[in-house]
Amino acid sequence: MVENTLTLHDLKKLSAENIAERLSKLHYADAIDIINHMDISECVNVFKYLPVDYAIELFDKPELEHPEKILEHLPTERATTIFDGMSADEAADMFQDMDEDVRSKLYPLLKPVTRAEITKLSSYPDDSAGALMTTEFIAIPSTWSVAQTLNHIKEVERTRETVYASYVIDPKTSVLLKAISLRNLILADPNKTILEAAKGSAPITISPFTNREDVTRLFRRHDLLSVPVIDEGNHVIGIVTVDDVLDAMTEEMNEDAYKFGGMEALDKPYLKINFFEMMRKRGGWLAVLFLGEMLTASAMQHFEDELEKAIVLTLFIPLIMSSGGNSGSQATSLIIRALALREMSLKDWWKVAIREIPAGLSLGSMLGLIGIIRIVIWQEAGIYDYGEHWMLVAATVGAALVGIVTFGSLTGSMLPFILKRLGFDPASASAPFVATLVDVTGIVIYFSVAAVILSGTLL
Amino acid sequence: MVENTLTLHDLKKLSAENIAERLSKLHYADAIDIINHMDISECVNVFKYLPVDYAIELFDKPELEHPEKILEHLPTERATTIFDGMSADEAADMFQDMDEDVRSKLYPLLKPVTRAEITKLSSYPDDSAGALMTTEFIAIPSTWSVAQTLNHIKEVERTRETVYASYVIDPKTSVLLKAISLRNLILADPNKTILEAAKGSAPITISPFTNREDVTRLFRRHDLLSVPVIDEGNHVIGIVTVDDVLDAMTEEMNEDAYKFGGMEALDKPYLKINFFEMMRKRGGWLAVLFLGEMLTASAMQHFEDELEKAIVLTLFIPLIMSSGGNSGSQATSLIIRALALREMSLKDWWKVAIREIPAGLSLGSMLGLIGIIRIVIWQEAGIYDYGEHWMLVAATVGAALVGIVTFGSLTGSMLPFILKRLGFDPASASAPFVATLVDVTGIVIYFSVAAVILSGTLL
Repeated sequence: MVENTLTLHDLKKLSAENIAERLSKLHYADAIDIINHMDISECVNVFKYLPVDYAIELFDKPELEHPEKILEHLPTERATTIFDGMSADEAADMFQDMDEDVRSKLYPLLKPVTRAEITKLSSYPDDSAGALMTTEFIAIPSTWSVAQTLNHIKEVERTRETVYASYVIDPKTSVLLKAISLRNLILADPNKTILEAAKGSAPITISPFTNREDVTRLFRRHDLLSVPVIDEGNHVIGIVTVDDVLDAMTEEMNEDAYKFGGMEALDKPYLKINFFEMMRKRGGWLAVLFLGEMLTASAMQHFEDELEKAIVLTLFIPLIMSSGGNSGSQATSLIIRALALREMSLKDWWKVAIREIPAGLSLGSMLGLIGIIRIVIWQEAGIYDYGEHWMLVAATVGAALVGIVTFGSLTGSMLPFILKRLGFDPASASAPFVATLVDVTGIVIYFSVAAVILSGTLL
Repeated sequence: MVENTLTLHDLKKLSAENIAERLSKLHYADAIDIINHMDISECVNVFKYLPVDYAIELFDKPELEHPEKILEHLPTERATTIFDGMSADEAADMFQDMDEDVRSKLYPLLKPVTRAEITKLSSYPDDSAGALMTTEFIAIPSTWSVAQTLNHIKEVERTRETVYASYVIDPKTSVLLKAISLRNLILADPNKTILEAAKGSAPITISPFTNREDVTRLFRRHDLLSVPVIDEGNHVIGIVTVDDVLDAMTEEMNEDAYKFGGMEALDKPYLKINFFEMMRKRGGWLAVLFLGEMLTASAMQHFEDELEKAIVLTLFIPLIMSSGGNSGSQATSLIIRALALREMSLKDWWKVAIREIPAGLSLGSMLGLIGIIRIVIWQEAGIYDYGEHWMLVAATVGAALVGIVTFGSLTGSMLPFILKRLGFDPASASAPFVATLVDVTGIVIYFSVAAVILSGTLL
């Protein structure tokens, strides 16, 4: 960061033309860091002077901030050149971010092929392979020779996002037959046909509607650099490349972390997001959880007689309830990951349940024992007097902990299954959500256990 | 999964030789799925008959279970052939998993180069680039021509994990000068020297001690397929490839999710991990949190007079405490991600603090208002009688919520900074950890607010 800030400072004194010249010698990502610190009018001036190929590369990176704003203010001719040159997936994403009036001004000026690509790519769901894919790939008729294919790659190289895989298609039906890596292509006999050179089993393919988590798993499973996206007729309509998968994975990590923290995902860095936007994303869930948690007040009102008779019980309410919530959020985070990695499917819920019940009983017994020891020490050492029936109070706390931790583990582990079954993302089972669910039941369990153990003495 | 199970069922009737023949026609990942379902002795028999290149590829995949066990039981000659053929990074990982006696038996039989690689790769920390890297890469003296380089790549292709980047080194000092992609190599004039062909700025490099999160960020930032790892003298000692980065990222996602759920990371799938191992990983943190949460009981004991006088206050304890925990875990998840993505650094803590205080005050006021409305409705509608001073009780709940949510947001957002400052992973700031911290203070805030508002009436 230090060297960039320095450069930025130096650049302030230079003309836009000079800045453009200096920037064009940097790594794209470093240039973007500097440009992101400029205001829009400065950016626009610099982009007027940047070499057009370099400018296109910068627009192709998702890290460039407000590309649509910069494009809007560039001379129309330069804007359309950049747009036509961008990789189709990034162009489609950017187009969707533009204001309606700019879109309608720009759209007719684009090349027909760019227009068609944008329309196609905009039609897939946000978290699908269709939204990740680019339509720029290398398709080779199966009758071509290896030498012909290599020449073709050299010719079209600049307009394709990756040239490391070529897709061999039937020259008549365009159906996908094989895939061949550049690695195998340069090893192959140049005079062979591409179909002979592309040995091995049928290529791995995905549908444009494949979920991005499944796309990621496929890349990991087969160590892929790219994968073809095919339609129902087995025609290649695009490819997903590994750099898009890395970006999608990072986005997924963020979303999951926010969800598990009990809030809506932010789409901008924390320090840059608008304050009221952030309040909306946090406040909504916080209010929902608060309304749910209000049931604890109702539950406690229900036990008001017991509360009045045995105030000593209230001392342990926070301790007992939080233990249920903690064991629940452990179980939830375990199952969310296991489902995300496809280590288990919906039908395995019972396998989890029969593991979580003994797990909950063991963990609950451990905590119960610690709780009992705590009460005994405080009582015997004279730190606090839990009253005449302190042993029964200790037994109540211990038994309630076993019940609540078991209930928490079971609820926490089943919640992601239930959410998934209902069509929600299992990762929405946030720690606060689980804690709220367990808290209300925790109070009922605690006072019910107390009613049994303390009946006739304190209650 | 269905077709694999079917195949597995069919395979049961076949000889090991037949199984091996059928497996060798499948994608590696599919063959591994089937092999992972066999017991070790079956595996060993199959591996005796698999084509050796195919066997090496299977051992190179981290998905193959217990590779070290299989290797231990294979005839020594086949075991060493496989070991020598494996990519160095996987071989080193596997070697570390082997029993000491097998290791000492196998080690002297390996090729000296394999031995040296294993020793080198085993010496780096687990989450560093050194542990991710492979020592098999393509280094080209800067005096070679493009044609010479391409021929060299064709010759050594089988022993290198990736051939999509070549590293141009000084023929005398072996210092790294440039990197060139296979894409640019096939485009270049075959008669030029490799140094002329490798245009562009200095190559992006990392140190073997670069943290794997930083490696991931670099891959995303520059859309890399591989990156050279260099020593202090600027010599390439290995490369990290994008498939290893995808695996590392998935591992990181798991670890973060488990940590945020308040437990130690599991290193095996949920349904496969040993029950007692899982109890240890969950029980440890659960007990620590329980001990922390015990302070709530002490805090409440401190306020026993107030509790006895105003039992009505106890009704809202769970509601108020959980709101603090929820706002805290939201703030924590926000900051953990922002730190992981390097959106901010340690010195930005105050920027976060001055955002979180107004955020907490706003969110707390919102919840406080909902809480007051709840009490007013219940009282006025006759659902529950909060006593003569119910308005003051409502005011206490509302004011306490403002205080606790603000405190929760601030604590939750500062905790990752503090952990990072102390050298811990900020992701260890789990939702249960934050909730525990906030709970104890929550009780103190609640009763202090009550003492002010209710003094002279209820208290």
